[in-house]
Amino acid sequence: MMVELRRDPVVERWITIPRERAIDIDSLFSIEEASPNDPCPFCRDQNDEKEIDSIRDAQGHWVTRVFADLRPILRVEGTLSRGAKGIYDRMNGIGAHEIVIETPEHALSWATMDSRQLSLVLRTYRQRSLDLRRDQRLRALFIVKNHGGMASHFQHPHSHIVALPIVPLSLIEEIEGGEKHYAYKERCVWCDIREQEMNDPERTVYLDDRYLVVAPFASRFPFELLVLPLQHHADFASAGNDDLDMLGRCLRSTCEMIQRRLRDASLSIVFHSAPFQNPPEHSFHWHIEIRPAISKLAGFEWGTGFYTNPIPPEIAAAHLRG
Amino acid sequence: MMVELRRDPVVERWITIPRERAIDIDSLFSIEEASPNDPCPFCRDQNDEKEIDSIRDAQGHWVTRVFADLRPILRVEGTLSRGAKGIYDRMNGIGAHEIVIETPEHALSWATMDSRQLSLVLRTYRQRSLDLRRDQRLRALFIVKNHGGMASHFQHPHSHIVALPIVPLSLIEEIEGGEKHYAYKERCVWCDIREQEMNDPERTVYLDDRYLVVAPFASRFPFELLVLPLQHHADFASAGNDDLDMLGRCLRSTCEMIQRRLRDASLSIVFHSAPFQNPPEHSFHWHIEIRPAISKLAGFEWGTGFYTNPIPPEIAAAHLRG
Repeated sequence: MMVELRRDPVVERWITIPRERAIDIDSLFSIEEASPNDPCPFCRDQNDEKEIDSIRDAQGHWVTRVFADLRPILRVEGTLSRGAKGIYDRMNGIGAHEIVIETPEHALSWATMDSRQLSLVLRTYRQRSLDLRRDQRLRALFIVKNHGGMASHFQHPHSHIVALPIVPLSLIEEIEGGEKHYAYKERCVWCDIREQEMNDPERTVYLDDRYLVVAPFASRFPFELLVLPLQHHADFASAGNDDLDMLGRCLRSTCEMIQRRLRDASLSIVFHSAPFQNPPEHSFHWHIEIRPAISKLAGFEWGTGFYTNPIPPEIAAAHLRG
Repeated sequence: MMVELRRDPVVERWITIPRERAIDIDSLFSIEEASPNDPCPFCRDQNDEKEIDSIRDAQGHWVTRVFADLRPILRVEGTLSRGAKGIYDRMNGIGAHEIVIETPEHALSWATMDSRQLSLVLRTYRQRSLDLRRDQRLRALFIVKNHGGMASHFQHPHSHIVALPIVPLSLIEEIEGGEKHYAYKERCVWCDIREQEMNDPERTVYLDDRYLVVAPFASRFPFELLVLPLQHHADFASAGNDDLDMLGRCLRSTCEMIQRRLRDASLSIVFHSAPFQNPPEHSFHWHIEIRPAISKLAGFEWGTGFYTNPIPPEIAAAHLRG
């Protein structure tokens, strides 16, 4: 399906819309769910020719591999063309949408996967980020990991990598917030958060030499978590192998805590890293947001941007620490 | 339950958090649903002493009435105190959270209610907006109407009015977007949208002398709708009785279309009006957003702010017009 990108004329928000006009509206009303009897698309032998990237063991067997998504949000093929339609801005749907198959083993999760394997998944992300940024049309990359029935159709451990020709609004907001703080204080706001949280560990759920995991002071959702590298870097892909080994351990412990203390809640994990072009090196600090899918967003939060979180992060952290 | 407001240190987003520490975390995992056998709290005789406001007929019977919400997000009582905790900003949860009971009749909706009754509901909103702004602590007001099982626990027609001591992020974004456009073009961006859509009615679903309803060019959600007054006003409460009569008809028709063409989908309706203090008179244009609850937000939209809408607004509009 071909899509186009459209920009909201009021706020800097880009969305994708199909270009086709023949759309089955009825299908929207039926919920599509993978049946447990369906063969897993990530277990089956993939067509090796279509493999974009992989990490292989000494015997040449893949341990992580990357394919283009079968139903991509955006496609790499074509020339990026920007245009206007009256007051509106649009461009064609150029970008990349890749699927990382995180392990050959179907039934694992980040809570049960060996942290060494998780480190290889993180290296795969880094490889893709370094490769995709060579495409001058692309501006920003998101890594999104969904786990559990409320967040993902498929059980087999996998994640999405989406490279966009625009910078999405939520990243623009963070960049502008970081720049404002930096302009005023000449300090990174996330470095300030790190200091504050390390002085007052009430919201901390995990800490090692390189990473801190906290329930953020102004958490939007119950048990929302922020994974913050202690060292300032704007770009996730600047992490070395040692960093990724430690990050694998950190994420494994954090997901284990969620599994144990939150009844294996479904969750979404999103990596926030600086855009590729003119990255704000000093004022942006890469980080990971984790949102367990526990209570549903009510109508009020949507449309007002005003979140009412029933669980104070101090309580969330204490509950997760156990 | 007492709450406090907390500000995200990176973006200007305020959220509420309970002040109590004794919280039943298990209750989060059970979905609370009103049983059809429960007595309707909005049909039962309310304690008249607790009535905040009402519109009454010639016989003195109420036709709309307003109460404080039994589980308010924010409370009016107390003094607004702002404070810092290290790098973080907080204030106590001062504000108003009111419930409008829209009619004595339990089984109506905006698709079946007489448009004259709907106009009285809109006048009630205006009364509350004019009254609440006299409280100097309050900055912005949202009116939120939820309909249907996916959006609301209760069937009896009701809506929420929430007045906040802060301006929520989604409104700040719209104000800043409007100001940017105005600074550059000396025109209101919503007036420009009105012109554009009236020249090219492909996305229009309703038009009369005073209101236009369109599926927005960059719709985030399938069948998202924007209700735009043709005349420029920053403040919803500036609407006269004639305006509200017409708006009642407009909203009745629009909700009827959604009921008929979208299988009576659940929906959320949010009124966006200028903040009370220093309202941006020229660059902000009040409007209403309608979001039918059809497809669920997936993990990717959350956390990236990048929406992939499967239904082009041109198709959405054609389908609604029938």
